[in-house]
Amino acid sequence: MQEFKVTSSERSQLIDITADVRRAVSASGISEGRCLVFVPHTTAAVTINEGADPAVRHDIEYELDKLIPWAGGYAHAEGNSAAHIKTTLVGSSETIPVSAGRLVLGTWQAVYFCEFDGPRSRRVYVKVTAD
Amino acid sequence: MQEFKVTSSERSQLIDITADVRRAVSASGISEGRCLVFVPHTTAAVTINEGADPAVRHDIEYELDKLIPWAGGYAHAEGNSAAHIKTTLVGSSETIPVSAGRLVLGTWQAVYFCEFDGPRSRRVYVKVTAD
Amino acid sequence: MQEFKVTSSERSQLIDITADVRRAVSASGISEGRCLVFVPHTTAAVTINEGADPAVRHDIEYELDKLIPWAGGYAHAEGNSAAHIKTTLVGSSETIPVSAGRLVLGTWQAVYFCEFDGPRSRRVYVKVTAD
Repeated sequence: MQEFKVTSSERSQLIDITADVRRAVSASGISEGRCLVFVPHTTAAVTINEGADPAVRHDIEYELDKLIPWAGGYAHAEGNSAAHIKTTLVGSSETIPVSAGRLVLGTWQAVYFCEFDGPRSRRVYVKVTAD
Repeated sequence: MQEFKVTSSERSQLIDITADVRRAVSASGISEGRCLVFVPHTTAAVTINEGADPAVRHDIEYELDKLIPWAGGYAHAEGNSAAHIKTTLVGSSETIPVSAGRLVLGTWQAVYFCEFDGPRSRRVYVKVTAD
Repeated sequence: MQEFKVTSSERSQLIDITADVRRAVSASGISEGRCLVFVPHTTAAVTINEGADPAVRHDIEYELDKLIPWAGGYAHAEGNSAAHIKTTLVGSSETIPVSAGRLVLGTWQAVYFCEFDGPRSRRVYVKVTAD
């Protein structure tokens, strides 16, 4: 299993980690298999979405903030329940095919670390497994 | 890795791809393992839900449209931010157990391709791996 | 593939199944690999979130109920469309790394079975695969 760090600078922030994940795939030396990206936090998640236009990232952050407002009459005393709820909606893991030694993503796809309670220093686990 | 095509006819449309996924499992010849269904698009997703009553499909499409309205004051100039956001909420991959050469789904479960910016011609990747 | 039962006592209820999943990992005897947790129902899901403060569980149940109200003008005659929609948003599977014979979860992470149409008796499938 490989691991890398992500540092967020905003409360809600999608950070493109595609290059880090590709690096982990190369380092594994595996040609045919699958790549598990796992976020070991409870107020951060992982998603795959468009990498080309930064406005997409912005719209996802904005709409999730609108759907799950930060101040929502929650019970959890720490005050970051919105971040926990977004984590459950977006999810803690993604599995991506690996073929010919490369991550198989669609033309417009990028892998994003989703910070929902930043700024913080975070970790991402990557596990590449051969078929 | 196997691949098949899906053609959508509506902007929002859940399309039952269970038969295609079962076919990919059979074609793999694998008896015990797992099946990764991966959607290589950024405005389409994959989910597992009830296959028996078409009203469930309809209700999912309707409620997602209500939660994430098409016209929402988004920044992304292409105008399809709602589709990107739904993709992040529903997710780009699902992993399903394979046992005795068959996809292990619950009695009511079906696998759906989720079109959020149709009509379009789309692709789905399936990777079946032995234990 | 291993299987265990979960019994819910409320309509919406997050139930901590971390101990059951850890037990399945131990029983598999696998040291390095990954663990697939799969829910074979269409009105129940699986998520990973904070295990320490029960208020987090409560806030997730409460906010999902608010986002997807039980009575929402749905078409599905059975009357549990809200549960189907939450299942699609939260997801039917999670994959977690296994290393040194143990489930690799972050400090605060727990695995939750998400009941959205209880009380019911349910099943969870766990498949641990070696690298």
